[in-house]
Amino acid sequence: MYKVAFDVMGADNGSLVAVEAASKFIKTRKDLYLVFVGNKNEIESGLKKFSIDESRYEILETSEFIDMNGSIMDIRRKRDSSMVRSLELLKDKKVDAMITGGNSAAFIAGSHFILGELPGIARPGFMPTLPTAVDNKLTLLLDVGANLEADIEDIIGYAKMANIYSKSVLKVKNPVIAQLNIGEEKSKGTLLQKEIYKELEANEEINFFGNLEARDILAGKVDIIVTDGYTGNMSLKAFEGASKILMNEIKAQLYKTIFTKLKALTLKKSFNNVSKKFDYKNHSGAILLGVDGIAFKAHGSSDVKSFEATLRMTCNAIENDVLNKIKKGIN
Amino acid sequence: MYKVAFDVMGADNGSLVAVEAASKFIKTRKDLYLVFVGNKNEIESGLKKFSIDESRYEILETSEFIDMNGSIMDIRRKRDSSMVRSLELLKDKKVDAMITGGNSAAFIAGSHFILGELPGIARPGFMPTLPTAVDNKLTLLLDVGANLEADIEDIIGYAKMANIYSKSVLKVKNPVIAQLNIGEEKSKGTLLQKEIYKELEANEEINFFGNLEARDILAGKVDIIVTDGYTGNMSLKAFEGASKILMNEIKAQLYKTIFTKLKALTLKKSFNNVSKKFDYKNHSGAILLGVDGIAFKAHGSSDVKSFEATLRMTCNAIENDVLNKIKKGIN
Repeated sequence: MYKVAFDVMGADNGSLVAVEAASKFIKTRKDLYLVFVGNKNEIESGLKKFSIDESRYEILETSEFIDMNGSIMDIRRKRDSSMVRSLELLKDKKVDAMITGGNSAAFIAGSHFILGELPGIARPGFMPTLPTAVDNKLTLLLDVGANLEADIEDIIGYAKMANIYSKSVLKVKNPVIAQLNIGEEKSKGTLLQKEIYKELEANEEINFFGNLEARDILAGKVDIIVTDGYTGNMSLKAFEGASKILMNEIKAQLYKTIFTKLKALTLKKSFNNVSKKFDYKNHSGAILLGVDGIAFKAHGSSDVKSFEATLRMTCNAIENDVLNKIKKGIN
Repeated sequence: MYKVAFDVMGADNGSLVAVEAASKFIKTRKDLYLVFVGNKNEIESGLKKFSIDESRYEILETSEFIDMNGSIMDIRRKRDSSMVRSLELLKDKKVDAMITGGNSAAFIAGSHFILGELPGIARPGFMPTLPTAVDNKLTLLLDVGANLEADIEDIIGYAKMANIYSKSVLKVKNPVIAQLNIGEEKSKGTLLQKEIYKELEANEEINFFGNLEARDILAGKVDIIVTDGYTGNMSLKAFEGASKILMNEIKAQLYKTIFTKLKALTLKKSFNNVSKKFDYKNHSGAILLGVDGIAFKAHGSSDVKSFEATLRMTCNAIENDVLNKIKKGIN
C-alpha cells in the first residue's frame, strides 16, 4: 500500500478541489492510502460531498497553513502548518511521498530544512513532465525555478537524476538529454554553457543530444532538457503566454468570420483538446528532484484534473521506486 | 531623399528576394533612394525581373560576401564583402541607413568596428518591434541577442534609447517600460535584476511599469521590455516555438474532425491572418540600437514581406531622425 500525505491547504482554489481530486483518483488505484493534512472541518465537509472509503484515508489535523503570500520564514514560524507537517510525515517515513499545491518558495525551503538534499546534490530542481507535439512523447524539463542559478555540478546532477527518472518512471530506454541554449552549435551560449556542453558530451552515462533551442522545448525531439531555473522558468512562461494569446486570437478570427454559434461550439471542443494537450498544468505537477523524499508540487492554481494528474505522477514515482534508484545512481 | 544601403547578399533565400522586396517597397515611398550592395550580376538579373526606376537606385559591386556560416573574423578578412561595404557607406555618411539580412554575429562585430558605439553605450542591443494581442499596439523588446550578458548600465541604456525610439518612431506619448523577470514582485529575480528594478524605478525619465513575466511579452501591457540578450533571445524563441507547434496542432485537430476540404481552405485564411499577426518576422527586422548609425538586421530567413517590413522600419527611423534624438537624449 502506498501512503501519500496530501497537503490540501494553501492552493488558490481551496481544499475542496483537492478533496474532490483525491476522491476521484483513489478509485483508480487500489494500492493508495491518503493522509489528508490540513483543516479538519474543511476536509470533512469536502469528504461529505466527495466520499472516500473510510479504510483508505486518515486526516492529520493542523492548526495553520502557509498561504500564497507567505514567506520562506513561515517554514520556521508555522511549525503546525499543513506543509511542514506533510514534509515531516515524509521525513519520518510515515508516508512514501507528499504533495502540496501551496507556496513554492516555502515548499523549497521546507524541503531543504526538513528533508535535506541527496548526497552530491547542492541545489534541487523542479521538474515538470511536459507534453510534446509528438503523440505520447513526454519531455522532462529542469530546473524550472527552484533555484535561479546553477553551476556545472547542478546541471550534471539534473541530467543524471532526470535520466534515472525517465528510465524508471517514463520507461524510456535510453533517454536523449539536451542542454537548453540560444543556439544549437557547440560554440553557442555563455562560458558556463560551453563548459556544461563538454561535460555532458564526455559523460558516458548520458546520451547527449547537444544544445536545444527554446523554440523546440515542446517539439518532442528529446526526452530531457536541462537548464538553470531562471531560464527554465522564463521559457516555460513564454510558452504559456504564447499559447494563451494564440488560442484567443485564433478563436476570435474564426468566430468573427465564418462560423455560426453552433459550429463555434464544435470548434470549442477541438480547441479544448489542444489546450489540454499543451497545458502542462493538466499533465502533472513538478517533482522537486534532488531532495531526500518524493515531494511533488501541484500548481497553485490547480483544478481537479491537475491535482489528479499530480496524484498519478506521485503514485508512478513511488511504484517505480525512483528515489532509491536515484540515490544509487547519482554516486 | 533618404538613402539606404541594402546588402542583398548573405541571407538564406538569395538576393532575388531582397530585390523583389525593394522593387515593391520603393513604389510606396517617393523619398527613398537605394544603394544595392552585392554581386552585380545577381542584382541586375533581379532588376530585370522586378524593375525599378533607374533614377531611384545604384549598385555598389562587391567581390565577396559573408555567409551564414561565416565567422566574426570575416569582418576583418572580407573587406570587400557586401556587409562591410554597406557599413562603410553608413560610416562615411554616404547613406542614411543600412540593412542586411546576413550573418548576425558578423553584423554585430562589423557595426562595432566600423560604426562604433554611441557615447555611454558599451553594448548595443538588437531591438525588434513586436506585434501584441492588443490591436495596433506594438512592443519593443531588447536586447534579443546582440550580447548574451548585460550589466545595469546596459539595461538603463536600453531603456533610455528605446524610450526615445518609441516616442519618436512609434509616436507613443509616454512609453511604459518593463523589466523582463521571472515574477512581477520587486523582490523577484537575480541580484542584478533587483538592482536594475531600483534604478529604473528611480529614473525620472522612465515611466516604469515594474517587472513583466515572459508569458506577457506579447500581451500588449507595455511599450518597451528590457532584458539581457540571453533572456530576450530565449523568450522570443520560446514564443516562436509555441506558436508553430500550437498552430500545427490546432490545424490537425480541426481538419481531422469536422471539416471538409473546402471549409479547410477558408480556415487556412484565418490561420494565416493569425500567423502573420504574431510572426515577428513579418513585422520588421531588428535595429541594432546603440551603434553610431541606423543599422537594421532583417531576419536571415526573410521573405519578400519581411524585407519590405524592414525597409519600412528603416525609412521610419530615418524620417524621424531617431539617431540624433537618441544621441542627444542619452547623455
